[in-house]
Amino acid sequence: MSISVLRTAGGPSRSSEAESGGAWWVALDEHRAVRVETPATSTADLLADVAAVHAARTSADESRPIAELALVSPVTAPCRVVAQMTNFVSHVRDSGMDPATVPLTFFRKTSGSISGPYDEIVRPGHVRFLDYEIELGLVIGRPLPVGTRVTEASWKDHIAGLVITNDVSARDVQLPKTQFYEAKSYPTFTPVGPALVLLDADELDRLADLRLVLKVNGEVRQNSDLTDMIYTPLQALRELSRFQALAPGDLVLTGTPGGTALKAPPKPVEIIAALLPPAVKWRTFFNSQQRNEKYLHDGDVLELSIRTADGAIDLGTQQNKVRFA
Amino acid sequence: MSISVLRTAGGPSRSSEAESGGAWWVALDEHRAVRVETPATSTADLLADVAAVHAARTSADESRPIAELALVSPVTAPCRVVAQMTNFVSHVRDSGMDPATVPLTFFRKTSGSISGPYDEIVRPGHVRFLDYEIELGLVIGRPLPVGTRVTEASWKDHIAGLVITNDVSARDVQLPKTQFYEAKSYPTFTPVGPALVLLDADELDRLADLRLVLKVNGEVRQNSDLTDMIYTPLQALRELSRFQALAPGDLVLTGTPGGTALKAPPKPVEIIAALLPPAVKWRTFFNSQQRNEKYLHDGDVLELSIRTADGAIDLGTQQNKVRFA
Repeated sequence: MSISVLRTAGGPSRSSEAESGGAWWVALDEHRAVRVETPATSTADLLADVAAVHAARTSADESRPIAELALVSPVTAPCRVVAQMTNFVSHVRDSGMDPATVPLTFFRKTSGSISGPYDEIVRPGHVRFLDYEIELGLVIGRPLPVGTRVTEASWKDHIAGLVITNDVSARDVQLPKTQFYEAKSYPTFTPVGPALVLLDADELDRLADLRLVLKVNGEVRQNSDLTDMIYTPLQALRELSRFQALAPGDLVLTGTPGGTALKAPPKPVEIIAALLPPAVKWRTFFNSQQRNEKYLHDGDVLELSIRTADGAIDLGTQQNKVRFA
Repeated sequence: MSISVLRTAGGPSRSSEAESGGAWWVALDEHRAVRVETPATSTADLLADVAAVHAARTSADESRPIAELALVSPVTAPCRVVAQMTNFVSHVRDSGMDPATVPLTFFRKTSGSISGPYDEIVRPGHVRFLDYEIELGLVIGRPLPVGTRVTEASWKDHIAGLVITNDVSARDVQLPKTQFYEAKSYPTFTPVGPALVLLDADELDRLADLRLVLKVNGEVRQNSDLTDMIYTPLQALRELSRFQALAPGDLVLTGTPGGTALKAPPKPVEIIAALLPPAVKWRTFFNSQQRNEKYLHDGDVLELSIRTADGAIDLGTQQNKVRFA
């Protein structure tokens, strides 16, 4: 059965404890949190001490309302953050590409971009077009050295659990630079959580039932289940095993569905744009984007959720406010 | 004055020592190597113990011919490997771009791709078009947290030394995927060394005098000094400080000059290609590349050197043989 683990940097604690400034782990029991008695300070350490998580759930220890906890990301940095490019049919179409031929592609984000599930998303001063991308995050639980043979039978062994992530993107940096690394790596550009939901193999079989919903100021912008996904986690791990070693606590983002602010221009416009020098092409494109009201504004509130319709797997709700630096 | 440090995994040792399988560091004194007495096992550890390197140079200890040492990369993994895209005027022209408007852009390589200066470069079975890129590698010596203000006066403080690197590239993976991360991250795709040359600030002022030369089977393919470089290390570190924390032992690749096997097609061909679906475009392009004899063949020998004409800064010579898996 799934277990939700959260990490908090503050909140009510037992008076017998001296919790001076550190963060600790809690396991979720309905809507109350029970402290996990573990020396783990990183996600990798916690995953090596899963027994402590199970023990917390059955402990008679006092529980605390989660609302009172100052939740931080349940995936701790440093870790590797690997992300899949264009991996949903709907997003590939939004991006003006062909779902039938889009390759399985990865890029890196810095783990310094990880922030908490209720932290502000800060738009750096040099960025104009800030966009959102809800993504299912896979948290690695078993080492995946390069050369590992990943099979239909083994892929689930490498995944400890799931998290909600937002692959925040500075489009006016991303598109002209072509490499996505910087534009998606500024501090606070990877909100993670609230929960790291540890799953067993049976539950991982239900991935396709998960529905990803992202709202901006209450308006639904992205809303898709995983039947829209092009390359499965099995295929992703198999490809990664050719070149990227993964370790417990590493995070793999699996791509976003359609509905982001960015949309590719219609095909005829794109063909004309291809005739222009890149600098002119991008100036023209971003001039046109000034009329696109979907890019994030100062004070916008994002709400992200990922769960199955029956609630059996529920990664919780992430909520962040946008702030312009 | 510059000091060359190398790392070896074997070779003649003093009979009084038990060096069973471990690697150790040597400092270069003319063409002989003197062991560095340090417990350091990583480049970061070594940079924290530079006094031991200096002590080795003045020690009366027995020296050994380097030719007898089994040299490995002087930059140890894990570390961050950050690379600059298209950063030389000549390479930008080769790539069909405009040096006046090409943006300062980074991507990540895995540190698992790091290999020794005389190791084989192994082309994976699924790769057809294997290419080379000689690059000057900056080895970070002082932490660069995100938000660091990097100035004309401070940038050199963050660089401990320089290494020769080869940013080996699987072009038929790189171009269709558009993100460079996987295509440049297979094992052995980042040969480093032989020497990590520790430099002081005065010597770092002479970067523009360094000449990069890459030969394939004795034929010069790349030959350029750094006056051809577009974005300087100062600009690179300043940009990285917006989003990527760096720590001692991390490696920044600064881009390659012209002369790689890959050349962009002439402009009219490119414009026609832009009208084609990507899958067709790449099939057409790589069919044409089959006649390009410059891509690496099984058994090819690469020789890379980076030095000033007066030899005051000399990163040594790297030599690798290509092997098809």
